[in-house]
Amino acid sequence: MATGLSSARFWPYQRAMTDLPVIRLKPQANARAIRHGAPWVFANEVVTDRRTRSIAPGALAVLEDADRTPLALVAANPTSKIIGRVLSRDPGETVDQAWFAARLSKALALRAQLYDAPFYRLVHAEADGLPGLVIDRFGDTAVVQPNAAWLEVRLKALTAALQQVTGVQHVLKNAGGRTRALEGLDDQSGVLAGQAPDAPLPVTMNGATYMADLTGGQKTGLFFDQRASHAFARRLVTPGAEVLDVFSHVGGFGLAMLAAGARTALCVDGSAPALALAEAGAEASGFGDRLSVRQGDAFDTLTVLAEAGAQFDVVVCDPPAFAPSKQALEAGLRAYERIARLAAPLVRDGGYLGLCSCSHAADLGAFRTACTRGIGRAGRQGALIHTGFAGPDHPLMPQLAESGYLKALFYRL
Amino acid sequence: MATGLSSARFWPYQRAMTDLPVIRLKPQANARAIRHGAPWVFANEVVTDRRTRSIAPGALAVLEDADRTPLALVAANPTSKIIGRVLSRDPGETVDQAWFAARLSKALALRAQLYDAPFYRLVHAEADGLPGLVIDRFGDTAVVQPNAAWLEVRLKALTAALQQVTGVQHVLKNAGGRTRALEGLDDQSGVLAGQAPDAPLPVTMNGATYMADLTGGQKTGLFFDQRASHAFARRLVTPGAEVLDVFSHVGGFGLAMLAAGARTALCVDGSAPALALAEAGAEASGFGDRLSVRQGDAFDTLTVLAEAGAQFDVVVCDPPAFAPSKQALEAGLRAYERIARLAAPLVRDGGYLGLCSCSHAADLGAFRTACTRGIGRAGRQGALIHTGFAGPDHPLMPQLAESGYLKALFYRL
Repeated sequence: MATGLSSARFWPYQRAMTDLPVIRLKPQANARAIRHGAPWVFANEVVTDRRTRSIAPGALAVLEDADRTPLALVAANPTSKIIGRVLSRDPGETVDQAWFAARLSKALALRAQLYDAPFYRLVHAEADGLPGLVIDRFGDTAVVQPNAAWLEVRLKALTAALQQVTGVQHVLKNAGGRTRALEGLDDQSGVLAGQAPDAPLPVTMNGATYMADLTGGQKTGLFFDQRASHAFARRLVTPGAEVLDVFSHVGGFGLAMLAAGARTALCVDGSAPALALAEAGAEASGFGDRLSVRQGDAFDTLTVLAEAGAQFDVVVCDPPAFAPSKQALEAGLRAYERIARLAAPLVRDGGYLGLCSCSHAADLGAFRTACTRGIGRAGRQGALIHTGFAGPDHPLMPQLAESGYLKALFYRL
Repeated sequence: MATGLSSARFWPYQRAMTDLPVIRLKPQANARAIRHGAPWVFANEVVTDRRTRSIAPGALAVLEDADRTPLALVAANPTSKIIGRVLSRDPGETVDQAWFAARLSKALALRAQLYDAPFYRLVHAEADGLPGLVIDRFGDTAVVQPNAAWLEVRLKALTAALQQVTGVQHVLKNAGGRTRALEGLDDQSGVLAGQAPDAPLPVTMNGATYMADLTGGQKTGLFFDQRASHAFARRLVTPGAEVLDVFSHVGGFGLAMLAAGARTALCVDGSAPALALAEAGAEASGFGDRLSVRQGDAFDTLTVLAEAGAQFDVVVCDPPAFAPSKQALEAGLRAYERIARLAAPLVRDGGYLGLCSCSHAADLGAFRTACTRGIGRAGRQGALIHTGFAGPDHPLMPQLAESGYLKALFYRL
């Protein structure tokens, strides 16, 4: 019998103490992976009987191997393909406000170490020991994305712990996460504590002030994940540079480059509200006169700009996920190639082209190949000077390679 | 007949103007790759006859496709597996001092844009349009690594152009590059202009002063390629932190972290001269009293430290290439895993472990897997907070994926 020593230690206690339902791995399932830190248990890996199916979504359960040795405490959801999310290797742990507070404290320590001001992704799900949970912090306001059922039924303890650990006054719930539906959750956002801000919040990053709309905006209002790439783009700005930010959202790259001394920035986006926030941010940053915006389809706009002979010193394209799934991979890579092909002619000789992907399905090699091909099809050649990922407030579980979704490539043409 | 339009343009002129020898691709060779920017022509891709074999190593030649359409101007070397290195898509170009000056100017423009002081890799071979050439700049001294035959026979023009473009007074030749032997070149270093410094040069990076031994040291005296990772390590330093730098060379990570406020740093390296330079650098930086060094085998030292129960807030291991070739890949990955396994126990809970690889053969995924496994075998779990590569003064040709040799992973344990 394969008995994990560290798990067996809890075995005599757990049953008596918790009386939790049990989820048991099939004999052919990879119990070793769980012992080595894998965070997810898939429904097809476990014995599904009447009792398993009757576990309430979000309830805690003890995961056992086929020999009934307890492996972990998991958050169960029989309605999801991910039937178990490992919360602890100790099946006897109690998940309450103190438990949340301990995990949040560890997450906070990392961000407090990394950033001067309390604006960051505070919790990045599995890698922070809080599966399915995303929290972005904007000073004394936090935006919580509970993207798994176990969180949805523990929002009170989570909110209390969050306020206790960070001192934030306002806690908003954003139910816009794509994965909530997979967990059987609704899309009703709301306020968990304090109140929702009645105006966009100013956030200072990389020398620029961004306006974050925490209730009406995309994701949780701002893309903290691109902060390091924004910082890299700043380094490419020569005095007097003209820069182009395509798929700009609230002006992530454009405002950072203006703050670094660009003479002009043009932000292109399909969303008028996002562009209005970019303009408000530039105004608040003191360079509203140097930003112009253009609303419209990015592909069309790149084509129109090329036909007009427009050229820029730095062009950055940060599109939405063109390849959000494996099924969409081929089409997505073609779209990335097309973006590169349309953007390259807009870059002056010796200038820079930044190309980003937030597609889980497109790995770094495939994305780089698509971009390089697109640049080549435009009749240009580029040296790759920088490859960047999401910043360190977006840690990854090494076991979940796919969570490394964000990639930024900077070419010098 | 597949006629590249851009190449055909030069066709009528080239023969009359240059009368260069010709290297012709076999019909089955990939002429398209050359047209799309591939930088190398391998000996098994070309028709090898008496005339080809008689081309002097380093001579220029015109590369033609199987239909005799000129494709490019190449630097030829019949003694190397890389028989041709593309210098220009224009077969009629003249490679003289002015040609070198134009390429060096473009390379300099990038570095001048990126760095405040003239200390950087000025030329990174193919990606800077100068195949096989590496130049590191240390203020008014440059260290040239001519790692291909065409450079060896043009050192005079190159040196003159280098002085003309950058204003450096002293130009040293470092013939220690591993690939020189493959090109049939000797290992005789020397002075190309000015004179060799009679003492290590101080170089300020990331707030620390490093001592670079340009004539007796490893590589060209200092590892500029890790500058961005040194900068990241700085961000992990809490006030009072104790840090460990294994395979420290002249103190790359250790001194940067001391400059960021670490209370103590221990540098471990096999080379006494490198450690003496680390100590001299710490002295020059004003924190000589906070650095200690230990000479010895890194594996042994990690083991001894663990047995003594030593722990640190940040541990970084930056070993030499354990997997310099595909043949050495398996053994190399085992060595990386072993380093991770030995280093992880030395990291305090909540502390950071940085693991680096400069192996061409170990790609990012394989290296990450080895590191993650080593950490797991030590009974620890880590979130991956940062993946970094060589800095932007080390650009890559997208077509030469293997030139992305340097990888740095930072885990929070």
